[in-house]
Amino acid sequence: MAIEIKDLTKRSVNYSQWYNDLVIKADLAEQSAVRGCMVIKPYGYAIWEKMQRQLDEMFKATGVQNAYFPLLIPKSFLSREAEHVEGFAKECAVVTHHRLMNAPDGSGVVVDPEARLEEELIIRPTSETIIWNTYRNWISSYRDLPLLINQWANVMRWEMRTRMFLRTAEFLWQEGHTAHATKEEAQAEAIQMLNVYADFAEKYMAVPVIKGVKSANERFAGALETYTIEAMMQDGKALQSGTSHFLGQNFAKAFDVKFVNNENKLDYVWATSWGVSTRLMGALIMTHSDDNGLVLPPKLAPIQVVIVPIYKNQEQLDEINAKVNPIVENLRAMGISVKYDNADNKRPGFKFADYELKGVPVRLVLGARDIANGTIEVMRRDTLEKSSISLEGIENTVKALLDEIQDNIFKKALNFRNEMTYKVDNYEDFKQQIEKGGFVLAHWDGTPETEDRIKEETKATIRCIPLDAEPEDGVDMLTGKPSKCRVIFARNY
Amino acid sequence: MAIEIKDLTKRSVNYSQWYNDLVIKADLAEQSAVRGCMVIKPYGYAIWEKMQRQLDEMFKATGVQNAYFPLLIPKSFLSREAEHVEGFAKECAVVTHHRLMNAPDGSGVVVDPEARLEEELIIRPTSETIIWNTYRNWISSYRDLPLLINQWANVMRWEMRTRMFLRTAEFLWQEGHTAHATKEEAQAEAIQMLNVYADFAEKYMAVPVIKGVKSANERFAGALETYTIEAMMQDGKALQSGTSHFLGQNFAKAFDVKFVNNENKLDYVWATSWGVSTRLMGALIMTHSDDNGLVLPPKLAPIQVVIVPIYKNQEQLDEINAKVNPIVENLRAMGISVKYDNADNKRPGFKFADYELKGVPVRLVLGARDIANGTIEVMRRDTLEKSSISLEGIENTVKALLDEIQDNIFKKALNFRNEMTYKVDNYEDFKQQIEKGGFVLAHWDGTPETEDRIKEETKATIRCIPLDAEPEDGVDMLTGKPSKCRVIFARNY
Repeated sequence: MAIEIKDLTKRSVNYSQWYNDLVIKADLAEQSAVRGCMVIKPYGYAIWEKMQRQLDEMFKATGVQNAYFPLLIPKSFLSREAEHVEGFAKECAVVTHHRLMNAPDGSGVVVDPEARLEEELIIRPTSETIIWNTYRNWISSYRDLPLLINQWANVMRWEMRTRMFLRTAEFLWQEGHTAHATKEEAQAEAIQMLNVYADFAEKYMAVPVIKGVKSANERFAGALETYTIEAMMQDGKALQSGTSHFLGQNFAKAFDVKFVNNENKLDYVWATSWGVSTRLMGALIMTHSDDNGLVLPPKLAPIQVVIVPIYKNQEQLDEINAKVNPIVENLRAMGISVKYDNADNKRPGFKFADYELKGVPVRLVLGARDIANGTIEVMRRDTLEKSSISLEGIENTVKALLDEIQDNIFKKALNFRNEMTYKVDNYEDFKQQIEKGGFVLAHWDGTPETEDRIKEETKATIRCIPLDAEPEDGVDMLTGKPSKCRVIFARNY
Repeated sequence: MAIEIKDLTKRSVNYSQWYNDLVIKADLAEQSAVRGCMVIKPYGYAIWEKMQRQLDEMFKATGVQNAYFPLLIPKSFLSREAEHVEGFAKECAVVTHHRLMNAPDGSGVVVDPEARLEEELIIRPTSETIIWNTYRNWISSYRDLPLLINQWANVMRWEMRTRMFLRTAEFLWQEGHTAHATKEEAQAEAIQMLNVYADFAEKYMAVPVIKGVKSANERFAGALETYTIEAMMQDGKALQSGTSHFLGQNFAKAFDVKFVNNENKLDYVWATSWGVSTRLMGALIMTHSDDNGLVLPPKLAPIQVVIVPIYKNQEQLDEINAKVNPIVENLRAMGISVKYDNADNKRPGFKFADYELKGVPVRLVLGARDIANGTIEVMRRDTLEKSSISLEGIENTVKALLDEIQDNIFKKALNFRNEMTYKVDNYEDFKQQIEKGGFVLAHWDGTPETEDRIKEETKATIRCIPLDAEPEDGVDMLTGKPSKCRVIFARNY
């Protein structure tokens, strides 16, 4: 597992290759022997775990509880909801047999033809169907509602073109599935969880997002409304980072989930579902990182501070160790994750490059001369600026710097997005702008046909109709039909 | 989801039915629409989450990192290790196709015959094969070792007879997979993780366990040694609660994982694997619970303390609320999970029975008269004893009581196990004792043939050869051949 630190492909040369290189070189993930499935390596998984912990806490703060539902879904369940089956029954992993046997010719193992399942089972692409089939037995009265449940799980969608974290056949995610007595309550829940996602993206990932609603073309299969948070990557493309769906009574009707309401009448239950996945890792990487490697927001960095000693002999190292050990202890007591790398089998230059590649937010370097001067060298990963500061009170300096980095990378990403967001009013300008990248705010007549045509001609889709879009009378660029507000068009991941 | 509190089947009447009833009535889990797969309900999952958090922390304290490997394993991988394929390639879920299509007759969706996979994929029954196939690229030198990795994952084994938590087709677990430069280091790792499991079982689950090594018959398919922790359930049967395997170089050889050792010679890597699963939930339930429901160890109880008010009117309730709210705050500040159930749609008697069923360790009841007297009623779930104690300093009383309950249920289980452990020296006594249940310490000649015959005739197997077994010369009950120590026989789950 010797880390080879070579130059990454530069973003300006090939953004896509830069991303692939970085995922591999920073030890985040790699392709597995199974088509389209990745191995998430310990460093990548440590970031995902920090995301999970934080999200889980935020979900629970809204009253959500975790549970676990089966991996496999009976094939017939998918057909129950007409739109859902169109969206999810196509490319999926199908279990048809439950036994292998030794090959008669001794060549290994083969599928036992006698062990064919009566009904094929699908590896869940999402769990609305099996969950609503379960909810039927859990809900009978309005007193059983709301039911607020989340599961952390793996899911599979047999994608043709895969990219690590962004689109893989198997991925890890959470899926919330809630049941409510009224339409209003379900709608409010869908919006509440969208807000949780947006808060998480902005406050923890330092990724600015636009909250909006999807057009019908981009809606989740089976939903009445799909809400989304959309982020902009450094190449100007959009990345849908989380979605929250108002499902109406569609799944309750498909799985016959009725309840006695507070007027003693039988009604179908109202539903939402909402999810984020390991795709967030892609958003994190592509929003902040640079040609030297990852740039991680301090709140999600597995190692927030690394300390590297510079010494010529054991005596100097002993002296440095004595200075550093209490600093490490103090930082840990402050809840800061710190690594003191005094391993002697790697040169400082190698360590510097490695921790830069890994996106460690703050690096401290201490040498004999620093000790004499009462100073220490500090490097911040976001700007790569180095400075010599006082050893006195270094812990508080570091803490403040971590907060500053968290703020700074968010602002930088926000500025970038603002600079790359354009208002466009005619289709020729639109085509040119889409080619250059960025979010394009344009008027749209509200029809799927127009959206389809734009997508065909420009590869841009409507990312969302922003929730805070200001009313503005206008006309569709293509059809000249009236429009009440601008929507966001972009090419996307 | 109205909870119906009916009498559980009594343990003395039908232990097995008592277990099944309890899992359902305490809202831990239920059968799903997919054969052999369960739904883990929020209350059951909350206990599992507490187990996970604690185990994860203990693993990480030994230097283990988490990662994630694919759910699906190419069929051919299973054949690489000769014994492993015998153990795991038989009853498993086989993915043969990657697409569904609309049925030509409009009857729903069917498997698209054109989407047959070139090589079938197996849903992991355990991940040694795919992980060692990955390690080949991660390990080249002794500097890359040890590699200490764990994953939390779902696995599937197509079991014929399933029971919730104890044996399900899909289950949740963690599997550690470590790679080492020397045999000694790998052996030490296998023992270290066994000790972690034993500590967790005894200190958190309050389940006493015997650490031992498995006989060849009961060894993990592909291991050189399997270490185990064995617990005794209240019906005198054994439950294997966790295993740790010393895999030698078997998987390294099967997947060609070599490294340059510190003498600059090429050698195969040494391996361990170790796992515990949602089966631990079964051990937890069956060790402590009684005819009134669950008894949970305070360290794993989602709710450690419940407070129920008794009042006749709003004025009394207001007075009680004013007393209880600061107590709740203080308990929470002490890290104690507390629920104040002042909901007015259920009578106190219903609440009492429900929290007993759910195994909440401590119940506090406060009425107007208690306030006048400066007292509060406390009930401990393990003994069901009630007493009236001073409101003054109630927080510290509760904290001490939680510790006492944790100790007490461990000691109770330990005493039970000790009482139910017998030394037996002839086969007739052995057969009689096995029929009555418990652990039977007997001499064994060390051959699989003798163990097989005993299993056939008595349904008892060797649970383990205890690590701390005292050397004792004896002779095998059946064959009269010499034996150096006693081993533990029992019927088991």
